[in-house]
Amino acid sequence: MFLSFTMQQTAGAARRATMQLPHGAVETPIFMPVGTAATVKAVPQHLLEELQTQILLGNTYHLYLRPGHESIRRLGGLHRFMSWPHPILTDSGGFQVFSLNKLRKVSEEGVRFRSHLDGSSHFFSPEHSIDVQIALGADIVMAFDECTEYPATRERARQSLELTQRWAARSRDHFLAHQQEVPWYAEFGGQTQSLFGIVQGGMYADLRRESAERLVELDLPGYAIGGLSVGEPRERTREIIATTLPLLPADKPRYVMGVGYPDEIVEYAAMGVDMMDCVLPTRAARHGLIFTSEGRLNIKNQRYAEDQQPLDSTCGCRVCQRYTRAYLRHLFAAQEPLAAVLQTVHNLAFYLDTMQSVRDSILLGTLSELLGRVRQRASATDTTR
Amino acid sequence: MFLSFTMQQTAGAARRATMQLPHGAVETPIFMPVGTAATVKAVPQHLLEELQTQILLGNTYHLYLRPGHESIRRLGGLHRFMSWPHPILTDSGGFQVFSLNKLRKVSEEGVRFRSHLDGSSHFFSPEHSIDVQIALGADIVMAFDECTEYPATRERARQSLELTQRWAARSRDHFLAHQQEVPWYAEFGGQTQSLFGIVQGGMYADLRRESAERLVELDLPGYAIGGLSVGEPRERTREIIATTLPLLPADKPRYVMGVGYPDEIVEYAAMGVDMMDCVLPTRAARHGLIFTSEGRLNIKNQRYAEDQQPLDSTCGCRVCQRYTRAYLRHLFAAQEPLAAVLQTVHNLAFYLDTMQSVRDSILLGTLSELLGRVRQRASATDTTR
Repeated sequence: MFLSFTMQQTAGAARRATMQLPHGAVETPIFMPVGTAATVKAVPQHLLEELQTQILLGNTYHLYLRPGHESIRRLGGLHRFMSWPHPILTDSGGFQVFSLNKLRKVSEEGVRFRSHLDGSSHFFSPEHSIDVQIALGADIVMAFDECTEYPATRERARQSLELTQRWAARSRDHFLAHQQEVPWYAEFGGQTQSLFGIVQGGMYADLRRESAERLVELDLPGYAIGGLSVGEPRERTREIIATTLPLLPADKPRYVMGVGYPDEIVEYAAMGVDMMDCVLPTRAARHGLIFTSEGRLNIKNQRYAEDQQPLDSTCGCRVCQRYTRAYLRHLFAAQEPLAAVLQTVHNLAFYLDTMQSVRDSILLGTLSELLGRVRQRASATDTTR
Repeated sequence: MFLSFTMQQTAGAARRATMQLPHGAVETPIFMPVGTAATVKAVPQHLLEELQTQILLGNTYHLYLRPGHESIRRLGGLHRFMSWPHPILTDSGGFQVFSLNKLRKVSEEGVRFRSHLDGSSHFFSPEHSIDVQIALGADIVMAFDECTEYPATRERARQSLELTQRWAARSRDHFLAHQQEVPWYAEFGGQTQSLFGIVQGGMYADLRRESAERLVELDLPGYAIGGLSVGEPRERTREIIATTLPLLPADKPRYVMGVGYPDEIVEYAAMGVDMMDCVLPTRAARHGLIFTSEGRLNIKNQRYAEDQQPLDSTCGCRVCQRYTRAYLRHLFAAQEPLAAVLQTVHNLAFYLDTMQSVRDSILLGTLSELLGRVRQRASATDTTR
């Protein structure tokens, strides 16, 4: 596997590190924008580069269904397909199989599900998920897991974590046997992808501990905490992260999947999380919910109809440098496609700048002050969550 | 009025000139992308600048309905509202009133119509159209006309052109009385907008001639030929343009509204047209119809699913420099908003580059060779018109 994780500085539990991957370096703690279908919705790749996006997340489930992983393999892999020569991480498809499919059927072997596109029947096993992810060729791939639903009984959570544990071992074995099949193997001098495992265990701290301890025995280059942001209160999310993180190796990247609001990502980074991803900044942007240094604003609001200020007067992004709230509100009200482009660029700028501040604060020893400011502004908003 | 039109070179009937407007210079012959609702659909303004877009067209009807001309006036006019500090032309609203409203009622005074957005009742007279256009503050505004439908009897076309002629005089009178109310009047040292008249007359050459001769008596700074591309065969369009152009003053800009395909805009420029606009490159892009140096291609086509070529291998645009047909087809098939962004950028690049070639060819004396090449490729396509 080809991942190095070099610690630059710690500040309490927080870590400032550099993760070197085949397609480039990633400065952590990092927030990864979601590019579900080989695109961060509405944003051209050069604008993602301008925002200094270091790593994108692609969704294996969506890419498997369309355009198909074999097609992407023939086209040289996901990096080349979408013209993103920088790091990429793919999820295992597990989360989408569970969240987008009401008729799924889980067995020891894997999951049978129906495509949300055309209802056709498909089957994902750990081996198949890894095959698909090798064809896509992201720098980091994820073990196939069962995302435990919320709420779940203790018995159900235990059964689910046991299955996830067996699937993780199968994912690893299959990955090790096939890792040389990644499309860029020769081009990158024999480098391969890196496989991360995923901790499950529902909302039960002892099950989370057990899941983490057993997963670490697989000796993977990185570990994720999955099954969060599935509807539980935020205090519970924080509690599970706090319980689990210390059990994951300190010298390897630790990734919390599917979080979160701006104040959450700062808080989790302060707790020692290195990587996070979430559709929130991009999806919210398309629905008119804007994140700013003074809190959230809903661009739909009539109060912005003649507001000549930028979305965020402290933001240096291209959108805030050029356009007014009045114009963006008009674009949104008129359902103009440019609204999604510009609002997504701003929200991503806000998230990525926030994480840059986190990284700077770790080096400067000012992380707790940053966390205080971020929490304060999170409560100031023109709309309810 | 503040428009200068300086001839650089002629080549047969074709003219290479510079049109100086309050917000900048426009090199003619020029194609004007359509930015209906204060946005060229899906394209950020900085990418329009990168494409060297010199002048945009805004639709008065749409902007009047949403966000409203008074709102745009209070925000400093359309240039400031949409952050486009370069030249803009607005149409009179007449074409949209006629094309988007089945229940319109035309009287000598003006047109009563219903909003296509909410069914509310509105009235446009020549005076009101000019008031709205002054509030928007484009560099060039258009007289309020009745766009004669196709087909129309000779009697109907005559009646319509008489009405358009009376409305043109009223438009001019009202403009002259109110031109100092443009939002940027003081900021631009007392400069004002320029009002163009519109020739009508249906498909009757003698009526077109009469319309042109009577319109020219109003002594406006530029003239347009309207009522074309309304369903008539292309030979008829060409014939009407050929009949009308010689009757319009040679020392003023001549604008054909609502055209056309790439070979059409080259042909009309060769005939002596200075300005054109059309939704075709932008609308077609959103529907997957791509214009290239080798003809048209429909990106939906399965044959492009694994095609690693750019849309147009001779095109220098940002899209052709970075993305493959396979990727763009995927984005289009997945209904990803990025498809519209990238395909519109390419189609506009193709149109604007085509017009740059026209301007270069006039200077170099190679316009007829260019026209031959453009006609040849227009017949090469993977789809029917």
